[in-house]
Amino acid sequence: VITRDDLAARDAADPLASFRDAYVLPDGLIYLDGNSLGALPHEARARLHDVIDREWGRDLIRSWTKNDWIGLPARVGDKIGRLIGAAPGQTVAADSISVNLFKLLAAALQLRPGRTTIVTEEGNFPTDLYIAQGLTGMIERLGGPAFQIRYADPLDIPAALDDDVAVVMLTHVDFKSGRNHDMAAVTAAAHLHGAVMLWDLSHSAGAVPVELDGCNADMAVGCGYKYLNGGPGAPAFLYVAERHHDAIDPALAGWMGHAAPFEFSPDYRPAPGIARMLVGTPPVLSMAALEIGVDGLIAADMDRLRTKSLALTGTFMDLVEQELGDAFGIMTPRGEHDRGSQVSLTHRHGYAIARALIDRGVIPDFRAPDVLRLGFTPLYLRFVDLWDAVAILKDIMDSHAWDRADYKVRAAVT
Amino acid sequence: VITRDDLAARDAADPLASFRDAYVLPDGLIYLDGNSLGALPHEARARLHDVIDREWGRDLIRSWTKNDWIGLPARVGDKIGRLIGAAPGQTVAADSISVNLFKLLAAALQLRPGRTTIVTEEGNFPTDLYIAQGLTGMIERLGGPAFQIRYADPLDIPAALDDDVAVVMLTHVDFKSGRNHDMAAVTAAAHLHGAVMLWDLSHSAGAVPVELDGCNADMAVGCGYKYLNGGPGAPAFLYVAERHHDAIDPALAGWMGHAAPFEFSPDYRPAPGIARMLVGTPPVLSMAALEIGVDGLIAADMDRLRTKSLALTGTFMDLVEQELGDAFGIMTPRGEHDRGSQVSLTHRHGYAIARALIDRGVIPDFRAPDVLRLGFTPLYLRFVDLWDAVAILKDIMDSHAWDRADYKVRAAVT
Repeated sequence: VITRDDLAARDAADPLASFRDAYVLPDGLIYLDGNSLGALPHEARARLHDVIDREWGRDLIRSWTKNDWIGLPARVGDKIGRLIGAAPGQTVAADSISVNLFKLLAAALQLRPGRTTIVTEEGNFPTDLYIAQGLTGMIERLGGPAFQIRYADPLDIPAALDDDVAVVMLTHVDFKSGRNHDMAAVTAAAHLHGAVMLWDLSHSAGAVPVELDGCNADMAVGCGYKYLNGGPGAPAFLYVAERHHDAIDPALAGWMGHAAPFEFSPDYRPAPGIARMLVGTPPVLSMAALEIGVDGLIAADMDRLRTKSLALTGTFMDLVEQELGDAFGIMTPRGEHDRGSQVSLTHRHGYAIARALIDRGVIPDFRAPDVLRLGFTPLYLRFVDLWDAVAILKDIMDSHAWDRADYKVRAAVT
Repeated sequence: VITRDDLAARDAADPLASFRDAYVLPDGLIYLDGNSLGALPHEARARLHDVIDREWGRDLIRSWTKNDWIGLPARVGDKIGRLIGAAPGQTVAADSISVNLFKLLAAALQLRPGRTTIVTEEGNFPTDLYIAQGLTGMIERLGGPAFQIRYADPLDIPAALDDDVAVVMLTHVDFKSGRNHDMAAVTAAAHLHGAVMLWDLSHSAGAVPVELDGCNADMAVGCGYKYLNGGPGAPAFLYVAERHHDAIDPALAGWMGHAAPFEFSPDYRPAPGIARMLVGTPPVLSMAALEIGVDGLIAADMDRLRTKSLALTGTFMDLVEQELGDAFGIMTPRGEHDRGSQVSLTHRHGYAIARALIDRGVIPDFRAPDVLRLGFTPLYLRFVDLWDAVAILKDIMDSHAWDRADYKVRAAVT
């Protein structure tokens, strides 16, 4: 039997315990939604104030060189690269996940001319599917060939592969269940058929160690505002393995990806390396906040974070079973190699329960139709928080506090 | 002969004079680069601190609804609409100019199936050309038809039009010369041939009054970080006339443009109206700053701004001729209907002269090969600033202060 004292003891022994002080965490709140929007690092406050007052207010346009705004996408990208096993020069911070997916899908299709199939899974994050639908739909409507999107069984990707597959596009950690793909094995299977492997790391980067180079991945995208703590709507990132750089003709060919943007030549000439995947002017304020978020994860070290994350998610599942029996389904795999840093509980009144939790200071999020999604961010979560969250959940269930009409009216939650 | 006293008298009579106090302007600096990066509004500082500390730090994920982050793209878009003659529901703030151009070009080509020509001008801002090249290149490489990009004579756009033209894409105020297109006339010419008219308002929005609806324009994009004072790398905006909304199948089909993003349906279904042109999660920090910048222009009123802007640019050209004779070429048209809010001077040592000006507290920018580009932002520029800037320029020329080896080494200036 797990007790609150056991968990307090684990906090006392936690080598990452002091990192919590680096984040703004409102009193009385147990924040289990760092997988939707990471907490504000104190240092990001200071950095943003400096960017606003000094860099924008005082240095104005000179900041592009003086304060190296122009270098932000590559610099922040390389820092993210350290978290996802990408050697320098292969990752940039830019645009949104959706826009980056479009850029990479268009590039991947061009790398495999004549092939007309994109493999993904129907449970992939919807925007990933929409981007594939939008790109292929546009090509067909403009008189190009018909590409098909083939949905694979997530537990048997290889069965969906053949030599017509141009690209396999999958999310590493499933946004709903928290289940992991085996990145090395799936990438190898894709390569066996000559397909380009494109990973969405939105629920991986900063949450689980990733070895893009080590897995021989071709391309990846990921999110800046979840585990990377980059702030609301932070720029996303993209990765392309160096071996592909020279062969990519960007579909989204913008001046920031030009070999010499300030020559103002009328003809596009792609920059060498990953810089060709940049498009427009980077959002400096949002990019500055992202850099601080990423710095925090580098300081904490992904291996230490993973160790604590597994302990948090494992302990939480144990506690739910201990305190709540079988009141909730547990969608997230128990195997340590099979899950990310979240636990997904299912309950047919999941939405109302989420609302009741929020009213009692526990912030989860909810994914239709019945998933309570709880993110465990080892940077700023304590083991005792698990106990307290489960105690509140148990009280809500025992007292039927969720059973209120106003909790059942859906509002958008991201 | 114009004297400094004349100009001080104009400042004393200027109905917009008090707006200057709303912006952070470093002591001793004459900022003639608001067309590259607008100054920081004091209110943006306060707003950003609140977004950081309260909305991100304290309210966290709840801010998407509680603080209406989700409504930012439409709300800020509609405010921008007021500056460009667009009725509500046709403008959104989102992404970068380049990405928005891609979305609109792809949409325009789909609105005119079978047509294969894009008309633009070779002197258009390069990223506009690159985007057209990237889109058409991708389609062709993926097995679609060959589209051609046809360069028109900027002084005779109609001569380049025929019934194969799907879209005419032009920048309203030329980034280099400051010359204006006649938006109504060019739009009518495009429509005569059944083409879609796409305007780039990067150097117009907040600088000159624009009447998109009144000119019957089809589509437009524009910049948030120039005259709109939205901060470095602020989100851009896009406009699509309401009559086209239902017919557009977005190429960049992202979850924020879905009819019901939080249903997480695997199939894309475009949102009604302009919202379908949204793609990924909006960058909240940058978007919040942009809203404050736009508010300032609405308060000042575009007609009053235009009156002062014409007075500033006209007086500046007069002063340059009075004080410097023919030392500089003046690229910007003298006609009041023919120019935006900038004056472009040419000189074969333009780059070194720009560097010398910066060292003496006058901030211009430079566009290769020989253009000194001076932006006149009536919100925060005084008439006496014109005198002082020309006096410094005259001193630099008289003393050959620009003739230094270190001024001749080019560095990137945006």
